[in-house]
Amino acid sequence: MNIGIDMMGGDYAPLEAARGIQLYLSGHNIPANLVLIGDKIQVEKILAELGVPLNNIEVVHAEQVIGMHEHPTKTLREKPKSSIAIGFQLLASGKMDAFISAGNTGAMLVGALFSIKALDGVIRPTISSIIPKANGGTGLLLDVGLNADCKPEQLNQFAIMGSVYAQLILGIENPKVGLINVGEEEGKGNLLAQSTYPLLKENKHINFIGNIEGRDVLLDKADVMVCEGFTGNIILKMAESLYEISHTKKVKEEYFERFNFENYGGTPVLGVAKPVIIGHGISGAKAFMNMIHLAQVMIEKDVMQKMKEELS
Amino acid sequence: MNIGIDMMGGDYAPLEAARGIQLYLSGHNIPANLVLIGDKIQVEKILAELGVPLNNIEVVHAEQVIGMHEHPTKTLREKPKSSIAIGFQLLASGKMDAFISAGNTGAMLVGALFSIKALDGVIRPTISSIIPKANGGTGLLLDVGLNADCKPEQLNQFAIMGSVYAQLILGIENPKVGLINVGEEEGKGNLLAQSTYPLLKENKHINFIGNIEGRDVLLDKADVMVCEGFTGNIILKMAESLYEISHTKKVKEEYFERFNFENYGGTPVLGVAKPVIIGHGISGAKAFMNMIHLAQVMIEKDVMQKMKEELS
Repeated sequence: MNIGIDMMGGDYAPLEAARGIQLYLSGHNIPANLVLIGDKIQVEKILAELGVPLNNIEVVHAEQVIGMHEHPTKTLREKPKSSIAIGFQLLASGKMDAFISAGNTGAMLVGALFSIKALDGVIRPTISSIIPKANGGTGLLLDVGLNADCKPEQLNQFAIMGSVYAQLILGIENPKVGLINVGEEEGKGNLLAQSTYPLLKENKHINFIGNIEGRDVLLDKADVMVCEGFTGNIILKMAESLYEISHTKKVKEEYFERFNFENYGGTPVLGVAKPVIIGHGISGAKAFMNMIHLAQVMIEKDVMQKMKEELS
Repeated sequence: MNIGIDMMGGDYAPLEAARGIQLYLSGHNIPANLVLIGDKIQVEKILAELGVPLNNIEVVHAEQVIGMHEHPTKTLREKPKSSIAIGFQLLASGKMDAFISAGNTGAMLVGALFSIKALDGVIRPTISSIIPKANGGTGLLLDVGLNADCKPEQLNQFAIMGSVYAQLILGIENPKVGLINVGEEEGKGNLLAQSTYPLLKENKHINFIGNIEGRDVLLDKADVMVCEGFTGNIILKMAESLYEISHTKKVKEEYFERFNFENYGGTPVLGVAKPVIIGHGISGAKAFMNMIHLAQVMIEKDVMQKMKEELS
């Protein structure tokens, strides 16, 4: 198993990535092989400084770096020797089984969408986010921004992919799927929600519990919460702001601490053939460790294959 | 000035409405005339019990009541002698200048849309909600659920109506208008947001500051926050749940107390010719008092006329 890591992505590159690798390697008896992509001299220097054992590590040189604010499509084309571009080449050619970066989110998405294949039958891949629930549990929200406009059939696919992910990665048996909507009854909602409801109701691959409202997002009503990426993005960023607000207000409440999304590592792109994990720009060592671990578990449990089966 | 109040609407009717009237009358030197619509015997009995002075009060008998969960359109047609139906008849005929109810929300909306006229040029009326800001200020969010699917021109009108309301009722000078979106830059968003941005940018009647994201909703970035009613409803109900969660978690923080929307009285329907104010079913005396006061200020400041001018 070869997991690729963009060493040049994120605000604290390559130090925090290297420290995350160190944490990962020290915590695993049988670690995956790690393919580190970046400025070879810089990367090897920092690994040496940290004293990271090199047994499971291969460093691949990338002479270019994509900046955090460069235009995704343009920069991927213009910088074929950047760490992100090389990462997707190695992923597409089969030399890597997963790819992780805390770099330019847009470039990572463009790469995921166009360099590697979508799973058979997937209309469009999606990105999800964990949503901490007030009862201590964890929900999954998707889409959170990749697909701002959606068709009902896409939401139906999000429900399936989200259910597989919730089951295999979050460990939720028979996850409850809720359609985010403005009312509880069937027939409520905008045209999209109205048309999506019957599809979810008929879908034998999921455990659909009906509509859920805004007030249910943080409560234990549904495990997988489905909507288009516009609403999902607003929900996610509003949830993120709770962490900031609780700190500004000096509210000492463990629940709001869980809205510090830096802790979660990253967001996998769902619906593509191989795990692509996108980290926050501010990812620290722990986030990198979590992302590598997530990639490993996604490969081990063959999450993509399971999604493919459920989608067909 | 005649303000109509549905005495039969809400979970604690008619007691809390009567107590709210009592609070209102005791707090105003020159109160408006109040038209109380409901079961005359019951209403007069409770007014007598509470010792409410009757100088400014007229009771109009309504022999029917619309239940909280009845079908709005159907019940309004089938119960022409209900307090809500009579309220809209009196409003439409000019015998009342405003109408308040904490009863069946759907019936109130149907009444507002079809019994009285929309302002000239208004595509569809809208409902807004106050959003408490973390810095202590107050924002206005609209639409919060009346229009789940919108066209760009509707959002443009919401921006105008919201600005007038924020200025005249919330007392915010030159209110900053933000378009709720998934990114800050122009060109971001779903098709609706992309098409709405240029309209807001060109709109001379508002102070447009650009896109705002989910993380900005609770912060002091925009005073008037514009979106279609699907997203707005999800945001509002998620905000409402913060009050509940903070209580369950025993978080003592004044900010989260402000998400107790019962305190605010009610939501005015904007874009109709006369003030129609819809209260929460659980409205207590204070909420009723606030709604009567809001109706009075809306009439005194001629909010509807100002909206009409700005819209033309």
